[in-house]
Amino acid sequence: MTVASRLESLRAHMQSLKLDAIWVPRADEFLGEYVPIHNERLAYLTGFTGSAGVCVVTMDAAILFVDGRYTLQAANQCPEPLFEHQHIIETPPETFLRDRLSENQVVGVDARCLSFQSFTRIEQTLGENSISLSAMAENAVDLIWTDRPVASVNPIILLDEAVTGASSVQKRAAMAESLKKANADAVLLTQLDSIAWTLNIRGDDVPHLPVLLAYAIMTREGDFTLFTDTHKLVDGLADHVGPGFSVLPIDQFDVYLKGLSNTCARLLFDPQTCHAHSPLLCRDQGIELIEQSDPAEQPKACKNATEVAGIRRAHVRDGVALCRFLAWLDGEVASGQAHDEGSVSDRLEAFRRELPELKDLSFSTISAAGPNAAMAHYSHTNGVPSPLVLNSVYLVDSGGQYLDGTTDVTRTIAIGEPSDHQKEMFTRVLKGHIALSSARFPRGTAGNQLDVLARQFLWEIGKDYDHGTGHGVGCYLSVHEGPQRIGKTPGPTAPLKPGMVVSNEPGYYEAGAYGIRCENLLVVVETDTPMLAFEPLTLAPFDRRLILVSLLSEAETQWIDDYHAQVREQIGDELQGEDKEWLQAMTAPLAA
Amino acid sequence: MTVASRLESLRAHMQSLKLDAIWVPRADEFLGEYVPIHNERLAYLTGFTGSAGVCVVTMDAAILFVDGRYTLQAANQCPEPLFEHQHIIETPPETFLRDRLSENQVVGVDARCLSFQSFTRIEQTLGENSISLSAMAENAVDLIWTDRPVASVNPIILLDEAVTGASSVQKRAAMAESLKKANADAVLLTQLDSIAWTLNIRGDDVPHLPVLLAYAIMTREGDFTLFTDTHKLVDGLADHVGPGFSVLPIDQFDVYLKGLSNTCARLLFDPQTCHAHSPLLCRDQGIELIEQSDPAEQPKACKNATEVAGIRRAHVRDGVALCRFLAWLDGEVASGQAHDEGSVSDRLEAFRRELPELKDLSFSTISAAGPNAAMAHYSHTNGVPSPLVLNSVYLVDSGGQYLDGTTDVTRTIAIGEPSDHQKEMFTRVLKGHIALSSARFPRGTAGNQLDVLARQFLWEIGKDYDHGTGHGVGCYLSVHEGPQRIGKTPGPTAPLKPGMVVSNEPGYYEAGAYGIRCENLLVVVETDTPMLAFEPLTLAPFDRRLILVSLLSEAETQWIDDYHAQVREQIGDELQGEDKEWLQAMTAPLAA
Repeated sequence: MTVASRLESLRAHMQSLKLDAIWVPRADEFLGEYVPIHNERLAYLTGFTGSAGVCVVTMDAAILFVDGRYTLQAANQCPEPLFEHQHIIETPPETFLRDRLSENQVVGVDARCLSFQSFTRIEQTLGENSISLSAMAENAVDLIWTDRPVASVNPIILLDEAVTGASSVQKRAAMAESLKKANADAVLLTQLDSIAWTLNIRGDDVPHLPVLLAYAIMTREGDFTLFTDTHKLVDGLADHVGPGFSVLPIDQFDVYLKGLSNTCARLLFDPQTCHAHSPLLCRDQGIELIEQSDPAEQPKACKNATEVAGIRRAHVRDGVALCRFLAWLDGEVASGQAHDEGSVSDRLEAFRRELPELKDLSFSTISAAGPNAAMAHYSHTNGVPSPLVLNSVYLVDSGGQYLDGTTDVTRTIAIGEPSDHQKEMFTRVLKGHIALSSARFPRGTAGNQLDVLARQFLWEIGKDYDHGTGHGVGCYLSVHEGPQRIGKTPGPTAPLKPGMVVSNEPGYYEAGAYGIRCENLLVVVETDTPMLAFEPLTLAPFDRRLILVSLLSEAETQWIDDYHAQVREQIGDELQGEDKEWLQAMTAPLAA
Repeated sequence: MTVASRLESLRAHMQSLKLDAIWVPRADEFLGEYVPIHNERLAYLTGFTGSAGVCVVTMDAAILFVDGRYTLQAANQCPEPLFEHQHIIETPPETFLRDRLSENQVVGVDARCLSFQSFTRIEQTLGENSISLSAMAENAVDLIWTDRPVASVNPIILLDEAVTGASSVQKRAAMAESLKKANADAVLLTQLDSIAWTLNIRGDDVPHLPVLLAYAIMTREGDFTLFTDTHKLVDGLADHVGPGFSVLPIDQFDVYLKGLSNTCARLLFDPQTCHAHSPLLCRDQGIELIEQSDPAEQPKACKNATEVAGIRRAHVRDGVALCRFLAWLDGEVASGQAHDEGSVSDRLEAFRRELPELKDLSFSTISAAGPNAAMAHYSHTNGVPSPLVLNSVYLVDSGGQYLDGTTDVTRTIAIGEPSDHQKEMFTRVLKGHIALSSARFPRGTAGNQLDVLARQFLWEIGKDYDHGTGHGVGCYLSVHEGPQRIGKTPGPTAPLKPGMVVSNEPGYYEAGAYGIRCENLLVVVETDTPMLAFEPLTLAPFDRRLILVSLLSEAETQWIDDYHAQVREQIGDELQGEDKEWLQAMTAPLAA
């Protein structure tokens, strides 16, 4: 079946469903960052494989909406005239449809694949021209997808309390308190990491994210009903989770919700992360909806002491693999071996895979040579990997999922002799990294209040980077976790609290030339003053060959030396031979 | 008439008006920071003279609500049992009344003395217990105030375009564009500084704020009707303001609004700064209300080149007066003369009053010796002024209103030999001041994103200050002007734009011991990069005797030396004899 014939089949269904357009987002009912292959409906329908986009199919057109990252890729993968193209920020699909369609026409959508908030917003915009948004009973793409892959049925992994630091019973009791405070009878959980965290379980259903596909309802008493493919269940699950736990097949979820009003008058859910279908169904049963953030979000974000200890262990392990890789890479470059982005990325992955504790990479490695590193979201797997560029810098952003923690680290490496300008820009990025890492701040401070610390040395010379400075990171969970972030959005963001893990990743990018990023993970800690502070979790040297020591203050030089001493202490004994010598040299005091 | 008998008279009116309580705020119909004496209704009724508070009078109680600044003062000025006392933040009057009164009772208020936003909020809270908020036809305090002072009728001052840089016609044309964009037929202006700015006029009706008491309606064509006491009118006003200008007596305002629906279907107003009475009256006439910020706010905040030049001239002048004062003070201290907060404050005012261009102080001088400086909002006029404290620091925060600009400056001065700890804290505050002053930042950056720069060296050692870092300042207008501010509120604040004037005033306070603040005014300027930057406007040395040079980086030392050189260049020639020698010594390079 070609893409053209898929579009035609979809249109046949549109006609029988009396729809004038169908909205197909790159999302499934769990609305996560990663979509399992059997839910890649947008890719199946259109051939577009980017990580974000919407296709709107009308009787006479198929319009693909993507953002600036994917403009070229969309044009290549979905050529005209079969497709029209629009920029999703400049022309959002809902305003496009409002202006393109006529009064009383109907747009169909799978309300499982849009957040409640998006659904409401789109409905409102279309309504400005009396166009209605109709939730389809079944996803129309599924109706035409004859060779759809089957979902994984990998068994659930039970996480010991020695790793999680708290039992599911304890976690549910704390979450139940939030429900009582909100005067809710139950909460609808659809965030996969929240469900996995609450039950102290993990899964293997989504790439890079160790969760199982599931929904859940938890009552204000902490009783938890999990809806999932029951083939994934393992012996001991019920004992592991503890009292007040039951499992039902995921295909019975709607039936369950239809009977929920017997026991639940007020249902809490998170309108930003929860799909529209289930809350709308509950509302139809007369259940009052309470829109509030996911009650697992805050306790999941604030890691307990056991989790922090595990995350530190994971970083020692991950640092050893990364240092072995960096030592190897320096050797290869020194001996003139030809390598490309793919071969070095594979070698890094191989070092990590030697670790028995590694479960997965925490995201697809960004391995970018020369000018490729200047492209946000570059992937060497999208085309032919480029060879490393001599006398420039190489950027590698990677991480692992371990049973006790998740890592995410970026290092920028000298290949040959980079220019003085590149060294200056690296040093400015590093100074920003150091300033943020050294910050102390009162409780209540949000990431957007600290962001300037990381950018100030670039702003000083009129430069900046066009991405956030930091994101939250889970514990053997999502590498992008909320609610905290560090960025320049002036709007309110969540306060940084003890135990939160956050990345510190300022960068600098010169289009067509090179890219620089310095990323450690940090954990928020208390101090002997009323202030909070960060401690680095990541353990790997910054490339001293790129540091212009003359641009560093005494305190900054000291910070680097102290950090490098810590790296040496924590992972030095795990390295042997030339790797160990490499680490000694790379972490020697800068002043020396 | 005693306070007790005033309360009784008010209760008699309450009874005849069938009210169960009357709400008396410390505000008049213009809702400004300063209230003219004839509108000080709260002080008349209760004897409480603080700058913020609410008295709620019921048939059997009078409850005074003030914030932490005024708890002691309120207890002294309004003793029990005649008054009850409440903390206005912990127990807001509306929740207090909701819980104290019974269903169907009625609270009376003058809807001219509450913002539209507050009125709506209070009405809603009271409604939770079916209590209603009733807008009284006349202010009940006025009915009992037999010896009320008369309002000032000082003549209007016309500001030349050589000072304002733009004609009223030009300003009104630009504001009319905002009305068209909002699809409004007219705007209701009640902010006194907006009215004065738009018409290029000033007044003398309010202490420290050079405006006239007035309302205004401007149409989308830019036609402007001013409502004021017509005794203030001066010859040439109509020509000065230009076409499309008319004046009506302020007591005809309500009558005018009642006929407004003939020409205005949609009226714009600012619900945060405009009182509730007039918009509610318009709504009753069937006029649709558009809630949006005052259209003069942005253009007034972004000073044009002529205004910035004037503000710089005002700062040269003000700097000369301040330096003469500081030189005098050093001499007095050196020669062992006994002075108190009042005598030195008077001397500073006298130096400013020697300037023919001075129109007023821009606020009541804060002159605080020793431990008094640790109290926020200290005023030496509230009791017996304290003598200067030897071997400590003296804090003086003051400013002037000049025809071409408004100043606001704080200096902390060594009296004798302050302790090393005081010097360290002064130096840390100064480092924060320097970091903020030196910042460069992209367009779109709001003050809360830069605030950390000023606090970082205090946060580093677990300290902080409990006030904002900076506020906007008008041009021969309000010394506290929006929308920009620099503070640690995580919420969105207005982006800093070229021409905005903002204070930079980090501080440090040790209760019972001393207080430190370093304040310059800054103007936002463009640079030769895409970034914006600040330039200092204030011209007066920081007290070098309090600076621990060893705590400064090279760049910080250079900043001080450069700033001091600039002070010397700009005001050195205006000083004579010992004053000039004093300035030379105080501005000599630190390193020397």
